[in-house]
Amino acid sequence: MSKISAGNNPLRDPDDRRLNRIAGPSSLVIFGVTGDLSRKKLMPAVYDLANRGLLPAGFSLVGFARREWKNQDFGKVVKEAVKQYARTPWNESVWKQLSENIRFVSGEFDDDASFDRLKATIDELDAKVGTNGNHAFYLSIPPKAFAQVCQQLKRSGLADAGPDEFRRVVIEKPFGHDLESSRRLNDVVESVFPPDSVFRIDHYLGKETVQNILALRFANMLFEPLWNSNYIDHVQITMAEDIGVGGRAGYYDGIGAARDVIQNHLLQLLALTAMEEPVSFDAADLRAEKEKVLSAVRVPKDIAKHTARGQYAGGWQGGEQVTGFLDEDGMNPKSVSETYAAMRLDINTRRWAGVPFYLRAGKRLGRRVTEIAVVFKRAPQQLFAESQTSALGQNALVIRVQPDEGITIRFGSKVPGVGMQVRDVTMDFGYGHAFTEASPEAYERLILDVLLGDPPLFPRHEEVELSWKILDPIVSFWEKKGKPEQYRPGTWGPSSADEMMARDGREWRIP
Amino acid sequence: MSKISAGNNPLRDPDDRRLNRIAGPSSLVIFGVTGDLSRKKLMPAVYDLANRGLLPAGFSLVGFARREWKNQDFGKVVKEAVKQYARTPWNESVWKQLSENIRFVSGEFDDDASFDRLKATIDELDAKVGTNGNHAFYLSIPPKAFAQVCQQLKRSGLADAGPDEFRRVVIEKPFGHDLESSRRLNDVVESVFPPDSVFRIDHYLGKETVQNILALRFANMLFEPLWNSNYIDHVQITMAEDIGVGGRAGYYDGIGAARDVIQNHLLQLLALTAMEEPVSFDAADLRAEKEKVLSAVRVPKDIAKHTARGQYAGGWQGGEQVTGFLDEDGMNPKSVSETYAAMRLDINTRRWAGVPFYLRAGKRLGRRVTEIAVVFKRAPQQLFAESQTSALGQNALVIRVQPDEGITIRFGSKVPGVGMQVRDVTMDFGYGHAFTEASPEAYERLILDVLLGDPPLFPRHEEVELSWKILDPIVSFWEKKGKPEQYRPGTWGPSSADEMMARDGREWRIP
Repeated sequence: MSKISAGNNPLRDPDDRRLNRIAGPSSLVIFGVTGDLSRKKLMPAVYDLANRGLLPAGFSLVGFARREWKNQDFGKVVKEAVKQYARTPWNESVWKQLSENIRFVSGEFDDDASFDRLKATIDELDAKVGTNGNHAFYLSIPPKAFAQVCQQLKRSGLADAGPDEFRRVVIEKPFGHDLESSRRLNDVVESVFPPDSVFRIDHYLGKETVQNILALRFANMLFEPLWNSNYIDHVQITMAEDIGVGGRAGYYDGIGAARDVIQNHLLQLLALTAMEEPVSFDAADLRAEKEKVLSAVRVPKDIAKHTARGQYAGGWQGGEQVTGFLDEDGMNPKSVSETYAAMRLDINTRRWAGVPFYLRAGKRLGRRVTEIAVVFKRAPQQLFAESQTSALGQNALVIRVQPDEGITIRFGSKVPGVGMQVRDVTMDFGYGHAFTEASPEAYERLILDVLLGDPPLFPRHEEVELSWKILDPIVSFWEKKGKPEQYRPGTWGPSSADEMMARDGREWRIP
Repeated sequence: MSKISAGNNPLRDPDDRRLNRIAGPSSLVIFGVTGDLSRKKLMPAVYDLANRGLLPAGFSLVGFARREWKNQDFGKVVKEAVKQYARTPWNESVWKQLSENIRFVSGEFDDDASFDRLKATIDELDAKVGTNGNHAFYLSIPPKAFAQVCQQLKRSGLADAGPDEFRRVVIEKPFGHDLESSRRLNDVVESVFPPDSVFRIDHYLGKETVQNILALRFANMLFEPLWNSNYIDHVQITMAEDIGVGGRAGYYDGIGAARDVIQNHLLQLLALTAMEEPVSFDAADLRAEKEKVLSAVRVPKDIAKHTARGQYAGGWQGGEQVTGFLDEDGMNPKSVSETYAAMRLDINTRRWAGVPFYLRAGKRLGRRVTEIAVVFKRAPQQLFAESQTSALGQNALVIRVQPDEGITIRFGSKVPGVGMQVRDVTMDFGYGHAFTEASPEAYERLILDVLLGDPPLFPRHEEVELSWKILDPIVSFWEKKGKPEQYRPGTWGPSSADEMMARDGREWRIP
């Protein structure tokens, strides 16, 4: 234990708190508290953090929405959400303490008085509960409302942190729609909050396996020497969902898979996989490396040849009849938005020159899986006869991001028998099997980081803009081309995606 | 399928046979057929090979021993041994065919008439059963009898192969007692049989996991780039037994662990682990690389500091009271032979300079296990704080030779939780789980290789001599020092072995 500050909280010093990872006195203010994300992820995460002893006694949760709720109505909603979605067991005394400091402010984004009431609520918490002027505003609302809310926070003085206080804002994707709109959005947010008070949530970065990429690469001797174009043939980053757009049909038209998940999740996975070793894991150092590698990404000149897209058709999937994308409820039947996107990206660095990164994301695919497959070159020469290695593929190291988090290594082993046959086998590390510790939900980790002001896992606006710079030429090329190819539900995407790989002499993994 | 030769056997051509790994017409003549090895390993292996369809119809098994048995008496002994020890299921028709060509010759090694009778038996097999002049003589007898039997085989004409015939001799360790005696022994054997007709059995080389070292290293891209002093800190090769010398007390005095298993098994494992890539897996190329690396092995100048030895004391092991080495039945109570031997060896090659290979072998240790542990250096720098990596050891790749054959990789992974702790985890490949194919017994593989004349897995006398050159200075140093340290049964050897490692700043793995 290092220095102990005065006061009731032995971890009042921000450095101590970060080291021990226990939040200091503060509140979390959620806008859009009636939405799905809030109910399924944010409220349960707050409770789980409290249950794990990572929130201070006076921590407060404030909801803001149109509903005419009282504090206790909101408390009931939170309780229900926690009971349904929390990961840690129900603990009455933890709940009791947490629920004492739950507040609700009923209001509209365009109504000054609503924000003044919010200000009064927060001042009261500071005075009576001891949140000490530390507040994080979580904008779980459509991006078009960001500007208005940020302006209201500014106008009402809610955005102004006093000395030794913090005011932070948390925003969720989409961070714009292209490079230009993301810049506009950022101008709005950063005109109110300084850059280091803006936390852009990419919940993928809160996942254990994603953070484990850093441990895997940099805490070990085994992997990093192989992590370059001498040994690696290519990398496949896949995010597959087995569901369709569901209730998001309205949102999805005009967005598509590339903007929805490649811009953020997949390019972040690419950055963590491909970046050089950072000087430290401090936010500035980590972000600098991610930005470096993202700015070295090159979009193929012949976009038609090296990308593919599709829309899922109606049909049968897993014994169930499912609706095609264009026939989904509320969908624009002329939508050209892709539900499957695949692209080859190259990275112009000494480490990665000649090693394509293939990214694909899609809905209604074979199964739900996110993985990073690092596929190695074949051994430079084979001592074994061709007939002995016919069942030997390329070595691979697969980081399974979800579900069934872990790592698989595929390599060749002798087949038992009096002859010498070499066949692919796998060895496996399962996160869930290896550790008795439960994995925290990504949002737990990220909300705690917001409260601690620990930003390494949050992309700054430069990263967001670099991602759009990569995607913009591809999606605008696609939009000019019109209708995407249809693919059958439950398959691994349109045939053009396989053809795209075949042109490079490679094929997609079936994850 | 390549060319088909004339005659009944479609695989008569030796190249075809080797490719298809089915023995041609031949017999196996076993001297010392009443011994344990013959009953537990050789006879069952012959049956298993027949059962797997790898022996031709007329294959013959000939026993030679003092007993006054008839063919059918010997047949019964074989049947019993097969029923008790064979790996493949009992198949009456396979047995029927095999048993038709089982012969027994009753005789003494010093009796010319006995060998003349053996000659007559074999001539009869050639004429009537079609073994075609192809015979392998397996000397499952004490080495002191080798000279006499070889001379008899020469005198009687049994060692003379006609054109398109083979006469081979198979010998088991010990291949001498030191460099000089191994040379004498070799002179005796090779004065009768040409070098490429002498098959020295090291049954460890017949083990699947040992052969898999070649597949692992050379069929893959993943491992070989790491396989050098840039990344590897040291290698530990362990052969631990939990039993004592048992009935071998008389034999063991004057031999000891180093001569008994390090000279052959452990130095062979070292050679396969450390050798450069051979030009091919042909015998000459493979042996050339093993000999190269063995001749680059250097014994430490200060033998006292870098070796250790011990004798197991009496005491309790696994709830059972066990006898100390010196008190074993039939043991010379003044024996200075070691039941535990450990040594550091260095390899003066560009690949391995500065990477010690630690070898240890012992009886009455913690458990029965043979493994090669390749221990990697720590990452050249740690981005993680010391407190985050306190449970992170060195990466390791462990080849489990027996039991539970397979490969384990140890590496550091993030511990689930909101902090960043890195801890050692393992990923595992189990031979038994990965393949439905049953592993053949080492002797099956090796007997088949003898019949096929496929010698890569058999060391030639140069290798044997190189091994003795390594051991001689160490064992003669030990013999001058007198009594070894005692160690408690069920432990991992004498304290001097731990001290030896501690002097190098390392420690033995608990396998």
